[in-house]
Amino acid sequence: MNYKMVLRSLGMILICEAIAMIPSLIVSLIYRDGTTDVFSYTISILLAVGISFAIALKPQNKTIYAKDGFAIVAFGWVMISLFGALPFYISGAIPSFIDCIFETVSGFTTTGSSILKEVEILPKAILFWRSFTHWIGGMGVLVLTLALFPITGTGAFQVMVAESPGPIPGKLVPKVANTAKILYTIYIAFTLTEIVLLVAAGLSLFDACIHTFGSVGTGGFSSRNASIGSYNNVLVEAIITVFTFMCGINFSLYYQAIKGNFKAIFKDEEFKFYLGVVLTAILLITVDLYGDIFRSIGESIRYSSFQVVTIITTTGYSTADFDKWPLFSKIILFCLMFIGGCAGSTGGGIKNIRILLLIKSIKTELLSIIHPRGVYSVRIGGKNIEEKYLSEIKSFFFMYMFVFVIAVLIVSLDGFDMPTTLSSVAAALSNIGPGFSVVGPMGNFSQMSVLSKLVLSLTMLIGRLEIYPMLLLTVPSFWRKVNI
Amino acid sequence: MNYKMVLRSLGMILICEAIAMIPSLIVSLIYRDGTTDVFSYTISILLAVGISFAIALKPQNKTIYAKDGFAIVAFGWVMISLFGALPFYISGAIPSFIDCIFETVSGFTTTGSSILKEVEILPKAILFWRSFTHWIGGMGVLVLTLALFPITGTGAFQVMVAESPGPIPGKLVPKVANTAKILYTIYIAFTLTEIVLLVAAGLSLFDACIHTFGSVGTGGFSSRNASIGSYNNVLVEAIITVFTFMCGINFSLYYQAIKGNFKAIFKDEEFKFYLGVVLTAILLITVDLYGDIFRSIGESIRYSSFQVVTIITTTGYSTADFDKWPLFSKIILFCLMFIGGCAGSTGGGIKNIRILLLIKSIKTELLSIIHPRGVYSVRIGGKNIEEKYLSEIKSFFFMYMFVFVIAVLIVSLDGFDMPTTLSSVAAALSNIGPGFSVVGPMGNFSQMSVLSKLVLSLTMLIGRLEIYPMLLLTVPSFWRKVNI
Repeated sequence: MNYKMVLRSLGMILICEAIAMIPSLIVSLIYRDGTTDVFSYTISILLAVGISFAIALKPQNKTIYAKDGFAIVAFGWVMISLFGALPFYISGAIPSFIDCIFETVSGFTTTGSSILKEVEILPKAILFWRSFTHWIGGMGVLVLTLALFPITGTGAFQVMVAESPGPIPGKLVPKVANTAKILYTIYIAFTLTEIVLLVAAGLSLFDACIHTFGSVGTGGFSSRNASIGSYNNVLVEAIITVFTFMCGINFSLYYQAIKGNFKAIFKDEEFKFYLGVVLTAILLITVDLYGDIFRSIGESIRYSSFQVVTIITTTGYSTADFDKWPLFSKIILFCLMFIGGCAGSTGGGIKNIRILLLIKSIKTELLSIIHPRGVYSVRIGGKNIEEKYLSEIKSFFFMYMFVFVIAVLIVSLDGFDMPTTLSSVAAALSNIGPGFSVVGPMGNFSQMSVLSKLVLSLTMLIGRLEIYPMLLLTVPSFWRKVNI
Repeated sequence: MNYKMVLRSLGMILICEAIAMIPSLIVSLIYRDGTTDVFSYTISILLAVGISFAIALKPQNKTIYAKDGFAIVAFGWVMISLFGALPFYISGAIPSFIDCIFETVSGFTTTGSSILKEVEILPKAILFWRSFTHWIGGMGVLVLTLALFPITGTGAFQVMVAESPGPIPGKLVPKVANTAKILYTIYIAFTLTEIVLLVAAGLSLFDACIHTFGSVGTGGFSSRNASIGSYNNVLVEAIITVFTFMCGINFSLYYQAIKGNFKAIFKDEEFKFYLGVVLTAILLITVDLYGDIFRSIGESIRYSSFQVVTIITTTGYSTADFDKWPLFSKIILFCLMFIGGCAGSTGGGIKNIRILLLIKSIKTELLSIIHPRGVYSVRIGGKNIEEKYLSEIKSFFFMYMFVFVIAVLIVSLDGFDMPTTLSSVAAALSNIGPGFSVVGPMGNFSQMSVLSKLVLSLTMLIGRLEIYPMLLLTVPSFWRKVNI
């Protein structure tokens, strides 16, 4: 490993974080909420540490190897979370530093799980920074999709890269910057549009920003205790449903659409699968809720569609206490937590393309057993998928469940009920936000033990970085200097 | 598909079932419990149907193709369950025929889940038949391990077959009968030994038979409402712990031991993994129970070791209401439900060798990412495992979870709590017996809806037959006459 280059890159990341904190500083100046000092201090600390790392170190070898890339991403995400937690701690908004870390990791990983019982009393700039971490996290994920995930061997992204006729090139490294620019432009355009629409629907500019960051980053932090439900505004709900749904789609499809190739979206098999899952889930939950929970079919559709979309996109906003819904609806939502968004979106979870390919490979295997002499292969978008990628996707699925089980075992030491324990880990791993029971939409993570909060924070990072980068750190040979 | 040969084989299976019912008929004569007629009728029906199928059909083509084999196994298991349910129904012991089917499927699949609230009032011969289905089911699984599973492409059995230096030959078909004979001899020897030991420990011959059938078949039906706990006899618990543990091990290792090669057992990687999981689980649960649930460390070990072994071997006997244990212990038991026994044992579940190989392949993949130019392969017993088998094992894992999720969705319509719903399906799929909450060790499956009972019965069959045979029936081309 090239330690010097890793440290240097981490320094640069901290400088970027300092810059990313400027909008919050401005918010604190506008609202005079007494946090201007907090952000000035934090920015100074970030710059001091960042510059000393970035400038003091003079690496002789400037090559960044693949494993250096993993180290930068893994530690980078940890570092911005540690430093990003400072405003919460210095301002006294969150008294426990462990809670500050949990909240910040939850922000940057676009999870949206919170230890706060009461958010409406917090200073505006603190709320702004809290939600802005979602927005930055969403951007971070888009670039990882291009630069890092395709080399981790998790199958889905190689397939995505190979299949996307879009801006994502086969050989990524030289074109990453260019492609990232296109994706960021789309991301910023979504952000601005949603802010304008939410303001038009009746939200204050501040609230519109908070909930836009939470939507486009598929995060889920709100400035209201009762999340989106507090507005009881169908228009706001519709806007957020549409934008979270859109941000759960592979962003390269928008590039196609911009270029006039609208058909590409509806030809994309992952998109079709995602749409199918969303519509099926809405239908089933609507039927389940109608009568028992809501008196009109319209209300059932309204609440079920909002909840299905914010859960599958791993945003986690709520308009109802879905923890009180019938078990069938809850189990569907629980399944959606694992499925998550599409590859190349800001959503988390296992990703639709992986689930789709897993199902396709089962079909192929059944056919191969029936017709042992037949030759069957898994196809997507009319092209055969290499067995190597399929195998990687299957491994990914097992790893996902493996990490889930280990985290559940540790969190179960807290002795909460089973729904709380299972859903808190699922919500962390798939970067959703709320779960059921104690950590349900009307609850929070404050009652969890310090150990559980740390484990869940780590789980959010593992999920967000598609498992591999964090797991690699546990392999001894990862730390050797020699690059083979 | 060669329909005539399939039907003929099914007829022969029914004749075998008639023969297998004779011991129950004898029990009814000994105890004069009024069920002699019940068994006579059922045996007559079985013989009539069986003989007419087996003799009336004159297949011109006597070849049994692979897919005929699947059909025979899948329908065979369904048929013996349907006919095997007759004694319960005719005698009036179980008034609902759906419940009769559930109980019989649970018996033959060596699951041990029961819809009975009260077993002690049942006629002896009915109880005997109920438990004898476990014993027959266990035998059935041993022969499937040899004849069918290795061709289904579920990875584990090919690996087992390839690795076993034992009686399991590379090319199975010609030697199946011979190998089956060896395995059955071991199975019968275990059965007789356990009966003798249980009688020596103080059980009546009848109770000793019942609990031996439940142990060696890793089933779990008891003649007592409070299962093994009702005896409060450490010796009985110790005997059952040892025998269920032994029946969770690959039977071909006993063949090695008989030939004097005792080392083979302790060299076997799957056995070592299984032993490691059992000991770790006992240790963790003992620590968790000590103080909170039991006052002495001895008691904690006694109850945790019994429960760990009967759950991982998928037997499901209980000596305590483990549903009242702390969540950590329950989550460990829940994980053990998925792991299950070793390949080539009478236990169900995913099987230790699959879990072991999945973990090994993760390690290999992490190393490959760190050292892209390195060549790594998964090894077991000093030999490389083909990528093809690993891929099949990974698919199997996904399918297992897929079936689990679908069944959970349907059972969740009943509206029980989450622990009941998740554990009832896990208990069915892995052929364990009890779960948590409503279906916990002190509960039963009687409150489930007819739909759930049918789905759980199907899930037991799917789990017992290692997923593929039942899933193949859903593929349209499976039913075509042409054999390609």
